[in-house]
Amino acid sequence: MVAVLKPGATKEQIENLTAWLEGRGLKVHISKGEFHTIIGLIGDTSKIDTELLGSLEMIESVKRISEPFKSSNRKFHPDDTIIEVGSLKIGGPHFQIIAGPCSVESPQQILAVAQSVLASGASILRGGAFKPRTSPYDFQGLHADGIGLLVDVKKQTGMPIITEIMNANHLPMFENVDIIQVGARNMQNFELLKALGQTSKPILLKRGLANTLQELLMSAEYIMAGGNHNVILCERGIRTFETYTRNTLDLSAVPMLRELSHLPVVVDPSHASGIARMVKPMAMAAAAAGAHGLMIEVHNDPVNALCDGAQSLTPEQFTDVAERVRKIREVIK
Amino acid sequence: MVAVLKPGATKEQIENLTAWLEGRGLKVHISKGEFHTIIGLIGDTSKIDTELLGSLEMIESVKRISEPFKSSNRKFHPDDTIIEVGSLKIGGPHFQIIAGPCSVESPQQILAVAQSVLASGASILRGGAFKPRTSPYDFQGLHADGIGLLVDVKKQTGMPIITEIMNANHLPMFENVDIIQVGARNMQNFELLKALGQTSKPILLKRGLANTLQELLMSAEYIMAGGNHNVILCERGIRTFETYTRNTLDLSAVPMLRELSHLPVVVDPSHASGIARMVKPMAMAAAAAGAHGLMIEVHNDPVNALCDGAQSLTPEQFTDVAERVRKIREVIK
Amino acid sequence: MVAVLKPGATKEQIENLTAWLEGRGLKVHISKGEFHTIIGLIGDTSKIDTELLGSLEMIESVKRISEPFKSSNRKFHPDDTIIEVGSLKIGGPHFQIIAGPCSVESPQQILAVAQSVLASGASILRGGAFKPRTSPYDFQGLHADGIGLLVDVKKQTGMPIITEIMNANHLPMFENVDIIQVGARNMQNFELLKALGQTSKPILLKRGLANTLQELLMSAEYIMAGGNHNVILCERGIRTFETYTRNTLDLSAVPMLRELSHLPVVVDPSHASGIARMVKPMAMAAAAAGAHGLMIEVHNDPVNALCDGAQSLTPEQFTDVAERVRKIREVIK
Amino acid sequence: MVAVLKPGATKEQIENLTAWLEGRGLKVHISKGEFHTIIGLIGDTSKIDTELLGSLEMIESVKRISEPFKSSNRKFHPDDTIIEVGSLKIGGPHFQIIAGPCSVESPQQILAVAQSVLASGASILRGGAFKPRTSPYDFQGLHADGIGLLVDVKKQTGMPIITEIMNANHLPMFENVDIIQVGARNMQNFELLKALGQTSKPILLKRGLANTLQELLMSAEYIMAGGNHNVILCERGIRTFETYTRNTLDLSAVPMLRELSHLPVVVDPSHASGIARMVKPMAMAAAAAGAHGLMIEVHNDPVNALCDGAQSLTPEQFTDVAERVRKIREVIK
Repeated sequence: MVAVLKPGATKEQIENLTAWLEGRGLKVHISKGEFHTIIGLIGDTSKIDTELLGSLEMIESVKRISEPFKSSNRKFHPDDTIIEVGSLKIGGPHFQIIAGPCSVESPQQILAVAQSVLASGASILRGGAFKPRTSPYDFQGLHADGIGLLVDVKKQTGMPIITEIMNANHLPMFENVDIIQVGARNMQNFELLKALGQTSKPILLKRGLANTLQELLMSAEYIMAGGNHNVILCERGIRTFETYTRNTLDLSAVPMLRELSHLPVVVDPSHASGIARMVKPMAMAAAAAGAHGLMIEVHNDPVNALCDGAQSLTPEQFTDVAERVRKIREVIK
Repeated sequence: MVAVLKPGATKEQIENLTAWLEGRGLKVHISKGEFHTIIGLIGDTSKIDTELLGSLEMIESVKRISEPFKSSNRKFHPDDTIIEVGSLKIGGPHFQIIAGPCSVESPQQILAVAQSVLASGASILRGGAFKPRTSPYDFQGLHADGIGLLVDVKKQTGMPIITEIMNANHLPMFENVDIIQVGARNMQNFELLKALGQTSKPILLKRGLANTLQELLMSAEYIMAGGNHNVILCERGIRTFETYTRNTLDLSAVPMLRELSHLPVVVDPSHASGIARMVKPMAMAAAAAGAHGLMIEVHNDPVNALCDGAQSLTPEQFTDVAERVRKIREVIK
Repeated sequence: MVAVLKPGATKEQIENLTAWLEGRGLKVHISKGEFHTIIGLIGDTSKIDTELLGSLEMIESVKRISEPFKSSNRKFHPDDTIIEVGSLKIGGPHFQIIAGPCSVESPQQILAVAQSVLASGASILRGGAFKPRTSPYDFQGLHADGIGLLVDVKKQTGMPIITEIMNANHLPMFENVDIIQVGARNMQNFELLKALGQTSKPILLKRGLANTLQELLMSAEYIMAGGNHNVILCERGIRTFETYTRNTLDLSAVPMLRELSHLPVVVDPSHASGIARMVKPMAMAAAAAGAHGLMIEVHNDPVNALCDGAQSLTPEQFTDVAERVRKIREVIK
Repeated sequence: MVAVLKPGATKEQIENLTAWLEGRGLKVHISKGEFHTIIGLIGDTSKIDTELLGSLEMIESVKRISEPFKSSNRKFHPDDTIIEVGSLKIGGPHFQIIAGPCSVESPQQILAVAQSVLASGASILRGGAFKPRTSPYDFQGLHADGIGLLVDVKKQTGMPIITEIMNANHLPMFENVDIIQVGARNMQNFELLKALGQTSKPILLKRGLANTLQELLMSAEYIMAGGNHNVILCERGIRTFETYTRNTLDLSAVPMLRELSHLPVVVDPSHASGIARMVKPMAMAAAAAGAHGLMIEVHNDPVNALCDGAQSLTPEQFTDVAERVRKIREVIK
């Protein structure tokens, strides 16, 4: 940690501050310049509140040197984390496509979509049973019944399944779910993250709509601090001033997260734009940027889908996307 | 709802769409222009998914005409809502100052701050027992013990108390709390909002860091849809590109929320900037903009506060702010 | 300047870096910690490119300690700058209201508005002659004729006048203009700023739509570096995700700019929201936050105004606003 | 254009409004619903100020149906525009890589970089002679001398050259420049755009840091309205809350701009992140998203570059990027 003193700081103030900091077990190095004095703090600075320190009258600014994320930090874990999902792996050299409808609607619908995307190259089935909707008056999902339908299709097709959780009290319903998804609006629902840290299931953690990569990693940290290190990071678009697309997919997050962390990074091009015809170019771009996986919405009848039909591919369109993505993967090797 | 067709839409496409919409109970008005055809939909359009409609090949854009919020909408409830908190009222002509420390730390601390702010014009005591922190390694609050200390001080001083909830399972601990606060990061924790809708306690709902006023009102709607109409809206600063202040207090939210909704609007100038010396000018500005109340952090010993000391006023500073705010209230009458 | 080295930096790398930095006339202080080594640089670091330094393989991060703005910095000029505009003063204890129409439209219109706002407490007349419009097909102002009309009204009423410049080649037309305005979209038109630095006229510099306060001060620096220290800073709303208001007025900019800089700070509540009925609460709030002045759009016939009628007050509404603002000024003294 | 009336609008108000609108040559269609009345306006609505209309007391909201951009709109010009740059083409199926240093520094430097990038697959040479810098104290470029050096290298290598303009008065110096670049900070410098509209040279127009795609197209419109239709659009990263990267490259802008407009779309991955090691993945992703070209910074000695060395590739790194991009182009065909 580095603190910069205001020009007028007196010798006595500096001595008091030094004593206070040394009392907290830190080594203090002082560099005096013509205009500014810089204080370098060495040791376990995690107990120092940077905002409090910065609020002292003699202090001009404070900068934390070490990243606040530990378990997810590549510095302390240089090798890529590879997460096992049934017999599949994700992370490092292992790439997976997650596909399926926005919402689970009926046994016929979810089975038809599953069989179709499996044939085209998807390996994991997605489908929403609990839907976070901005309006309380919108369709909220089939809940336990929706999870039941996913589990049935998992038995029939062998595909691992992923679905979103919104309430830690629902965890017992997720017993046969292979990956639990945390949605963007719950990225900083710390109580939910703590509860998921107590499980051993892989968690796909979506970046919040206006959150930084550091905040995403700190939320991963909440899960990992509980003992569950199976966290998959997911970029799904952030809020910007652009209105032609619903959100703006931040693909630079992919190489940056891979540099900062050892966790796998997956991209959801469907929710980012909210427009089906944008999914193909953005899925290819995500693969080119180095994502470990994609999560794509596919529906056998997008026009009559109960939610987010606007962003769903038909099975035929998905087949084309999956094939191109496979070729892009060849180029970046 | 209004839909604009693409220039090339055929007569047959338009007839099919009209039939589909009429089949959903809507009246359809068609206005043909040289380049565009506009379809006006009259009736209960709440069942139509605007994104799906917008995704049809023949459709250029769709616009919902009615605001999606109902219970909180001033159109359907023209008079200001006045919420009772013990013997106090907030909303309409009733203005209240909520003050107290960021965190409840000890019996001595919370009592000392309470007595001090009560003497200076605050009427409601705040204090955090559950603290949402970005890092799992930071101080998270005294939990049930913290609420117990607040309740003790409530008995001693007669001040109603407000504290933040992070988990619906904790509701039994909030039995003697007068106002339950929902923090910015939980503004779209829909499961928590639904649970609070089942209570009858006043809820202070903070705007999320990157959320619009419409989203804030939709979250109020989640609480009100459950039957609890005692919602207080709170502007506490939004995320912008500015870095000298932690967040940017959006005071235009005050007159705009008062126009859109009948619910009371409170401003928290302490969290917005994160800097104690900004609280005074921004508290006065919030009162001048027409807020129904203020929420201000005060600590008897800010430098040694366990959290957010940087933004806490001393009791002496608070006294000055409260006095100026009282005078501003006279001017805007 | 402070640089943090990556954990693996070798002794040789550190020695090479130290030699390179000392070769540039800097004193180098090294603090070694368990995980990180911190290098403090003392001396004239303005010649060091922080991004280049940060790109070296051995460097983890670099932080500039001194603010990059000099002439506008309160540290080197503790007293408030007071700018003379004709016989008026702005800055320090001197508060002025600038009022007038968005665009100069006709001799009758500009004279009528001027007389009206002068009677109600405005002291400086505004009116656009060159209008920056997003669309090339929109009304662009009366240009030289518009300035001519302003100058005529100045002679008749004695009010100093302010109008916007978009092109340094137009400077000769601004000979009789008292304050030259730089619009938000030109805040980083560095060529224009340099040209204005060669004049001695007061410049009202508007903050860009997505610019930080530091960037605003750096743009002031461009003007001041040329020798013209008569710069008035203007907050006029920034772009956020909110859509009910056109922009979001950042009133915390007022106390923060006053702390960082000695220059006067004026607020434009009309452009910020784009809604006439928001001007009154936001003008009062701006005064309460400590602004040195206000710039308010007033039109004698807003519904038929050629541009931005939506945000213009009638003269009657302006009279009420000016009176309330006067009272708020009493409270904050 | 569609206007929605407030619930209480009287018959007389509606008749007056209708008369006023018909007086402006518009056809008016009225659709009455239970709660809202919708007015559809057909005809040339470009003369109606939507904000003014929206400010009328009886009006709830107004929505413009037609896009405000005309010349750049694909609807009125369905085929891709292909722009000729010397003997090269850009747009449609023609893809070009622009490469070179941030700043022109010396004859040796610019020639060495040009020869190197030409050998690796770049076809157009970039190099800054006028540099827009946030600080007036930073290096501002070699100006006319820099352009002279670029022209010399053009003669030696045959590569067309591109460099940035900041002031319309400098246009005579750009006589032998093949593409004139408008930087992000000048995207809404409308006076500069108008002057460029009077030339016939290709203009590469960079998107502003916080501008929407519609605003970018409206700025293209300023150039095209003057008669110069040779506009190349350039995505170079937008400002977001993320701090690990300098800006956030918005690759969804590529397919969206290609849908909205017929103009070529180029991506600059170097400025977006400001980090050399991010250029490779983002250049590949941009190609995968369908860009018509890339603009990449390459320097033979990045560590000693006068500006932005942090984001420059070495010639060796560039060779690898160019080769991968060529392969990605094969996949998306």
